[in-house]
Amino acid sequence: MGGKKTPTGKNDTGSSDPRNVPRNVPRRDFLRRGLAAGVGTAIAGVAAAASGEELDIPEWSRKYGPGVADKTYGAPSRFEAGVARKWLPWLQASSQSSASFAPLHDLTGTVTPNGLFFERHHGGVPDVNPAKHRLAIHGMVERPLVFTVDEIKRLPSISRFHFIECAANTVLEWKRAQMSSIQFTHGLLSESEWTGVPLKTLFEEVGVKDGAAWFLAEGADAAAYARSIPLEKALDDAMLAYAQNGEALRPEQGYPLRLILPGWEGSANVKWLRRIKLGDKPWNTREETARYSDIMDDGKARQFTFVQEAKSVITDPCPENPLKDKGYHTISGLAWSGRGRVTRVDVSFDGGRNWLESTLQGPVRPKSLTRFSVPWTWNGEEALLQSRATDESGYVQPTIGQLRKVRGDNSLYHNNMITTWHVKPNGEVLNVQVD
Amino acid sequence: MGGKKTPTGKNDTGSSDPRNVPRNVPRRDFLRRGLAAGVGTAIAGVAAAASGEELDIPEWSRKYGPGVADKTYGAPSRFEAGVARKWLPWLQASSQSSASFAPLHDLTGTVTPNGLFFERHHGGVPDVNPAKHRLAIHGMVERPLVFTVDEIKRLPSISRFHFIECAANTVLEWKRAQMSSIQFTHGLLSESEWTGVPLKTLFEEVGVKDGAAWFLAEGADAAAYARSIPLEKALDDAMLAYAQNGEALRPEQGYPLRLILPGWEGSANVKWLRRIKLGDKPWNTREETARYSDIMDDGKARQFTFVQEAKSVITDPCPENPLKDKGYHTISGLAWSGRGRVTRVDVSFDGGRNWLESTLQGPVRPKSLTRFSVPWTWNGEEALLQSRATDESGYVQPTIGQLRKVRGDNSLYHNNMITTWHVKPNGEVLNVQVD
Repeated sequence: MGGKKTPTGKNDTGSSDPRNVPRNVPRRDFLRRGLAAGVGTAIAGVAAAASGEELDIPEWSRKYGPGVADKTYGAPSRFEAGVARKWLPWLQASSQSSASFAPLHDLTGTVTPNGLFFERHHGGVPDVNPAKHRLAIHGMVERPLVFTVDEIKRLPSISRFHFIECAANTVLEWKRAQMSSIQFTHGLLSESEWTGVPLKTLFEEVGVKDGAAWFLAEGADAAAYARSIPLEKALDDAMLAYAQNGEALRPEQGYPLRLILPGWEGSANVKWLRRIKLGDKPWNTREETARYSDIMDDGKARQFTFVQEAKSVITDPCPENPLKDKGYHTISGLAWSGRGRVTRVDVSFDGGRNWLESTLQGPVRPKSLTRFSVPWTWNGEEALLQSRATDESGYVQPTIGQLRKVRGDNSLYHNNMITTWHVKPNGEVLNVQVD
Repeated sequence: MGGKKTPTGKNDTGSSDPRNVPRNVPRRDFLRRGLAAGVGTAIAGVAAAASGEELDIPEWSRKYGPGVADKTYGAPSRFEAGVARKWLPWLQASSQSSASFAPLHDLTGTVTPNGLFFERHHGGVPDVNPAKHRLAIHGMVERPLVFTVDEIKRLPSISRFHFIECAANTVLEWKRAQMSSIQFTHGLLSESEWTGVPLKTLFEEVGVKDGAAWFLAEGADAAAYARSIPLEKALDDAMLAYAQNGEALRPEQGYPLRLILPGWEGSANVKWLRRIKLGDKPWNTREETARYSDIMDDGKARQFTFVQEAKSVITDPCPENPLKDKGYHTISGLAWSGRGRVTRVDVSFDGGRNWLESTLQGPVRPKSLTRFSVPWTWNGEEALLQSRATDESGYVQPTIGQLRKVRGDNSLYHNNMITTWHVKPNGEVLNVQVD
């Protein structure tokens, strides 16, 4: 039998009204006793609400909410309106050549919701009609082919979780122009479960001619954005993706077709893909010569540096997530590597002098965001928080000093430096550089 | 150096204009030659477009699209407007006690986008202010506690991928009222990466008293929806979740706090959680007596049948995804089990007489949606497509006949029958029952 309902709709499930239990008991005392005993550390100051607070029935429990509606696509709570992608107008080449940053400080787990996936466009977002979109594969192939989107979707597909990081993520740190904001230092980074066709399958269809070693991938945007990619990547793990996190690619992410090159710089994962041309050498497009190459101290450029090397960052605390109270905290962050799995992340509280191994949230996927955490009891003193990722190739995330020693001061891209968060006694968190 | 740009903005990347390559070559011939050679089966009729089609530069490539904007939260392409949750008004108890179904036929991979996660409400969706929301834990505990949402978020968290399936998913099949629609036969099913605190952690904080064996979980909705849960689940893998797929829970999914009981019927995963009371026996609320219990042939009810047993369904083809052409197809579907990992999924083309083992998309996660696929060359004949999941406990998904033999004809819930899609010669797919 169902429990009797009280006039406010609560379940009267026994002789003592359960709502009475917490009444008139100082809440602050609960927390001091409870968390102090269990976690082993008092969380002082957390119980900000006044003592003696009662567990009243809130207004939203006193009336029906709306039920479902037909043909809906949901949205976040109105109380989450601040969780958004943001941009830096002064950083843009133009209103179309633009970027927006994901709010890493607000995100949990490893998946990025599609609505918050970072953006980087070179000619704005085209409004592609999937029924009219075509993908051509030609050049050094036996059978040049043109595919409709429906034809691509009929081929055997795979789904894989992979991060995409813009080559220019953390760009301002090269210039020692520290912004105290994880959204703007690391927010050109997101992760999806991508679904699509292994590029290998398509290349088998067209028949790669002897001597072919590269392919050109060109987008259907106004920039006709184009990049040269080594053929080996197509034969390894490259995908022609049409979906992310269960649904069609978002317009900003290349709807209806994009290239996914797991672990490689975001800019090579060409969006709105309309053409793949096979050849025997790279095409040296604007975006792999004047852009997305690394200028060394002697003025020469390192070109085709595709792999995003091992990197990590602490997302909590961070400039947007200051410490509110002394006592127990969980330090949490993200680590990733373009070479495979993250195998370990160490955390330092003193700017890299001493390191503590963190716990990785499993199962750890290759070329995929990995969450790490360590418990921390903050005594209110200053700290220099750092995280340092190691991947399965043995590569260890470097300091900015180590990077500058090799790359000099001309770089814009591929900055995977160890980031330092300076925790101040008032709990404020600043972005600083420790060589 | 960057490639020269043609007047239309395309990269002129060599002596022969790459756009000329596919020109004036019959597209249909490309496909016949290409896919026939590679896949081994001609995909006849796929190349619906006229032969001789040329690869023109589409209109969206000829002008800049919009760049990024500040404080944005993205949305799907306007061409995807048909991908939506839907409802059946005649199935609802009231406008607040209502459900909407996820479009499984449109989804890829394993993650459900938050905007398409199925809904089931008993008193509508409350508009909960997280700053004012409280969670009380009391009853048979040493230290009754009240938590703010911020306090919960400070505790050590975990992230896990799990499905949630409504106990009433596939309800109409019990009544032999087949709807030819996977959205309405199986769409009370979705998956997220959930982030939150192990319930165990909170129970350690409050200190469970000797003799406690159950807890009551109550929501902050107008129904004060409440369920009794065995204590063992809290000490095993139950979570107090505050995020899904990287962002805060959606309002329809229990914002700001809900219970996650991996593998257990959706209705026990109480949303908008405001109160947990520990006791020595279940409370026998309305939703575990008059509802969500299984009435057997003799009129007696099986109560507290929490686990969602192994189940699977083919999502492509399905009634909403008919076959358009003979030839090569990938049969794709979802399998899941509340007892752990899916270990194998078999597919039949003849209504269960012969079975073929499918390929599982790895890594297979426990109590989580798992995608399976098998290649199929359809010769245009009728077929009775079925899928049958087996899980790591050895349990094999039953036929509806096997289910009726045990449960009789009174059941509404827990229908994990093998589903049969009847493929007609014209490619239409109907939902039929095969005992």
